[in-house]
Amino acid sequence: MTELLLAVQPLTEQESTILINQGIEIVTPELVTYEQLKNVTISYGWSPELGNRILAESDNQLRWVQYQGAGVDLLPLAAFAERQILVTNASGVKAPQIAQTVVSYLMHFARGLHVYQEQHLWHEYEDQYTLDELPTVIFGTGKIGQKIASYLSPYGMPIYGVNSSGKQVPGFDKVFALNDLLSVWPEGIQVIINTLPDTPATHHYFNSQNHKIWGELFLLVNVGRGGTVDEKELIASLQSGRIRYAALDVTEVEPVPADSMLWQQRNLILTQHTSWANHTYPERRSGDVFRILSTNLSAYLNHEPLIENVVDLTKGY
Amino acid sequence: MTELLLAVQPLTEQESTILINQGIEIVTPELVTYEQLKNVTISYGWSPELGNRILAESDNQLRWVQYQGAGVDLLPLAAFAERQILVTNASGVKAPQIAQTVVSYLMHFARGLHVYQEQHLWHEYEDQYTLDELPTVIFGTGKIGQKIASYLSPYGMPIYGVNSSGKQVPGFDKVFALNDLLSVWPEGIQVIINTLPDTPATHHYFNSQNHKIWGELFLLVNVGRGGTVDEKELIASLQSGRIRYAALDVTEVEPVPADSMLWQQRNLILTQHTSWANHTYPERRSGDVFRILSTNLSAYLNHEPLIENVVDLTKGY
Repeated sequence: MTELLLAVQPLTEQESTILINQGIEIVTPELVTYEQLKNVTISYGWSPELGNRILAESDNQLRWVQYQGAGVDLLPLAAFAERQILVTNASGVKAPQIAQTVVSYLMHFARGLHVYQEQHLWHEYEDQYTLDELPTVIFGTGKIGQKIASYLSPYGMPIYGVNSSGKQVPGFDKVFALNDLLSVWPEGIQVIINTLPDTPATHHYFNSQNHKIWGELFLLVNVGRGGTVDEKELIASLQSGRIRYAALDVTEVEPVPADSMLWQQRNLILTQHTSWANHTYPERRSGDVFRILSTNLSAYLNHEPLIENVVDLTKGY
Repeated sequence: MTELLLAVQPLTEQESTILINQGIEIVTPELVTYEQLKNVTISYGWSPELGNRILAESDNQLRWVQYQGAGVDLLPLAAFAERQILVTNASGVKAPQIAQTVVSYLMHFARGLHVYQEQHLWHEYEDQYTLDELPTVIFGTGKIGQKIASYLSPYGMPIYGVNSSGKQVPGFDKVFALNDLLSVWPEGIQVIINTLPDTPATHHYFNSQNHKIWGELFLLVNVGRGGTVDEKELIASLQSGRIRYAALDVTEVEPVPADSMLWQQRNLILTQHTSWANHTYPERRSGDVFRILSTNLSAYLNHEPLIENVVDLTKGY
């Protein structure tokens, strides 16, 4: 059977060549005919309009959707499940950028750049840290958490992970379950990095009551969702020195209002929900989504299980 | 024969225990007797006064000096060579700190912290770079250069090295000889990191004539010696945008005078010859020197060649 790919996501010339060399025919949304739609086997990106027209044909040939986004809640998952259509998503394409922003926060305070940047005076500041002295807990062991752990691995500090089940994940010295964590909190933790969303289990989890269990911290980072941090209590901890530094990419209110106390903390970096940003973002994202397609392609063509970013249609992620 | 170690460098209790468990006797400079001095086999650290008294005894038993510094030019190398006394130094103990400061510079500009720190306003700054986009050349492939390369390895950019001979070194994609470099300059280099000293071959090597060969750069870093960079030309390049950012830990004049133009460049980080600094430096250094002793100890006890930081007494380093 001929594989016909509907390129909802734009393809570069090089990407098209890669596909054509593997015997795949390509059709674009602008040029696709009614007859061709029925014969589409791969939807690269999802267009609700064209996609629904494909699904409306009882004899359609669609077998695989490579979605261009991470969250698939807007896709017709039930229809996909019924027809056993494979779905892969673009989860994780921002992970390198976000994880690199996290490293930038950590390095900034550890190596004293906050002092050198402020003073513009010759000042031998020696209160600097080497990263092996900063044992770290990463909340969230998904793609972002794993990427952070991999970037930190050359530095030799202990790196712990936290997830809902306590399932161990490569790259972490040990992973704890969120529910058990406070009773087994490892000693000497200096850095907490949150990548988790705001859920009933995590809302205001980073509050002063829990800070008491953690003891004094060198740095608290939040690149998950703003609601996980109780900002009023964070500001108090930053002022008392219980938490020495913080870096927030996400906040309870975004944009941060001009009169927010957060702007006043000299030991806090605020970025603007931009930890994911890249100067070539749209092109970079396209390249990353194509890489996921490409990684899965030979498995798909050989009728083997897909490898990367496979969505479980019953779970919805 | 009993091994007797003269602890010129202080030992922690734990370190002493490690030595004693391997059958080594320890004596301190305060308590050492004349008779014991002759029987010292290992000098842990070098005290000129006690060391010269040992060497003055023709039947002294000294076999190994673990020096507490990196440069050994002040040691009596000829006397050591004559008696075949082994010398190891403390070269590289600052490498992790210096290399981490280099990563902090790179991350600072790549992830846009210079903008967020200045503005304290909500501003979605998207002109951020991901490190795989920043091919890097590291001048110097010694311990500092290697450490930088190892810290950058998870990010996936090409990493080239430069040394005097062009000898390949693990951790670099390719190493070039300094003399050949300008004719084989790899395309697309965005970051130059200098760790080299100021010698006739490197003095003002980073000047505007060579900048022309390199093309536009994202970042120039100097953690070697200040004389390698022509600062007047660097400032012109920073102002024209040919070099977008720079970070100097070393400068032609130190301390940088208050009226120096360097302070005025907003796209320049100046640290104060403190890239090596650590809040627990004296203790940390002691621990690092002990680790070198400890790494070499079993080879020494088995009369095998020492492994780490062995000084070539004819070359003097």
